[in-house]
Amino acid sequence: MAVAYFPCIQSARVTPRVSCFFSVGNYSRSHYKRRCCLVLASAKKLEDNFGLESKVETLLDSIKWDEKGLAVAIAQNVDTGAILMQGFVNRDALATTISSRKATFYSRSRSTLWTKGETSNNFINVHDIFLDCDHDSIIYLGKPDGPTCHTGSETCYYTSVTDLLDDQQAEENKLALTTLYSLESTISQRKAELAAPQNGKPSWTKRLLLDKNLLCSKIREEADELCRTLEENENKSRTASEMGDVLYHALVLLALKDVKTEDVLEVLRQRFSQSGIEEKKSRKSHS
Amino acid sequence: MAVAYFPCIQSARVTPRVSCFFSVGNYSRSHYKRRCCLVLASAKKLEDNFGLESKVETLLDSIKWDEKGLAVAIAQNVDTGAILMQGFVNRDALATTISSRKATFYSRSRSTLWTKGETSNNFINVHDIFLDCDHDSIIYLGKPDGPTCHTGSETCYYTSVTDLLDDQQAEENKLALTTLYSLESTISQRKAELAAPQNGKPSWTKRLLLDKNLLCSKIREEADELCRTLEENENKSRTASEMGDVLYHALVLLALKDVKTEDVLEVLRQRFSQSGIEEKKSRKSHS
Repeated sequence: MAVAYFPCIQSARVTPRVSCFFSVGNYSRSHYKRRCCLVLASAKKLEDNFGLESKVETLLDSIKWDEKGLAVAIAQNVDTGAILMQGFVNRDALATTISSRKATFYSRSRSTLWTKGETSNNFINVHDIFLDCDHDSIIYLGKPDGPTCHTGSETCYYTSVTDLLDDQQAEENKLALTTLYSLESTISQRKAELAAPQNGKPSWTKRLLLDKNLLCSKIREEADELCRTLEENENKSRTASEMGDVLYHALVLLALKDVKTEDVLEVLRQRFSQSGIEEKKSRKSHS
Repeated sequence: MAVAYFPCIQSARVTPRVSCFFSVGNYSRSHYKRRCCLVLASAKKLEDNFGLESKVETLLDSIKWDEKGLAVAIAQNVDTGAILMQGFVNRDALATTISSRKATFYSRSRSTLWTKGETSNNFINVHDIFLDCDHDSIIYLGKPDGPTCHTGSETCYYTSVTDLLDDQQAEENKLALTTLYSLESTISQRKAELAAPQNGKPSWTKRLLLDKNLLCSKIREEADELCRTLEENENKSRTASEMGDVLYHALVLLALKDVKTEDVLEVLRQRFSQSGIEEKKSRKSHS
């Protein structure tokens, strides 16, 4: 495991205890200084790596591995929260994920480590790892490079039990979507349905999709109503309801522009993972 | 398992094959009709239940149980996407969850079924269940009644590996938050920091929190800019960026009003799980 760990960890604040005891000899003062600094830096890096390896070992020791030396690992999309897949990890698989930042598992059927994406290139880039209260279940919180499931589906969870029990001919590929993405998916379906001839009065969503002026006037109106819940000191449920209206209408606009909610969240994540100063600098100036 | 299944499943379209062959005797025609209908209804219910039980059995047969008869079950918040906890299920635990709609697991240490919340009352109300592509991993997509972890934490995943490796004194209780909730949490922290004396220039978030007029003018401005990306046919990345601005500023308003993003999503879920007609009726009329 002599590999680079998380960049944030590489900056571990370990004071180097190695002093620069080279004799100066023929070297100029600046050359000496430069070389001395390089040696110090390498020594510090070695010591940091050593300290880090020892921390990783302590962490691995703290996991409650089952009788086969395994724990459950769940890969979750850092932006959408979608559960991408679930596998098992042993000590080596978790250590490899910590060092490579690519979600790595232990295959129980093949008795080998495998990194998701090693054949498909659809890696899951791990941003952080979380342990549960019992230290026997792990979340890989990360960003997938592409669909996670070997079937080409975005996640492995596309079979709804309700659908299966309600109707034998239930459609497959109904992803386990949480509220925001379920709504996004519904709006997307309405947009797709517009291609077919319309019977009867169109739904509100379809009317918005067909009429940009109506949609934009609603977005401005709902944003105004949201503000007024603060300005006029309205109750919390009114704020939640108005924010719901803003979100819904804005999602219709995103659908029209073919922009995914996930893309918006990625923008926000990148913006807010910068330091305050960087964020301020990069923020466009509004007059 | 002679219990109520999902309401949507109870309406299973099974045609009753039992005819009403009672003799009329002394009963009035209306009494006869009423009784006949009751018998028909009971017969239909029995047959529906029988059909459903058989479907549940088929479903349970389709799960790839491990050598101990277990599969992994992950409970996920239907609104926020937060992974609440992970446990194992056997055949009975999954059948119980299907019938009771309360997340139920099999305790490997106590060798018994247990329903999350049976002692704490913090049940997880299951809205749907999803199987993965291999049928050996399950998502309980549901709404928790309260904190899921026995420690009182909202979820069981509050130990960040990055924190552990970066600094031995890393704070615990840093939940595994996805982008939207991570941003919400940061804004919440900024709001809490306002109670302490402020040194130097406040951050943009703090300025917004301190100045309702500034905040509301920004929300209206960002909503307008989002609309203009549609009206003026700007590119997709511009739309994503402006939507990010809308979301961020709206989250600041929610923080000021002590409204959680989860509450907003619950409003949206309830609104969109109604039929189109109900939704239209309940939608407030905007002039």
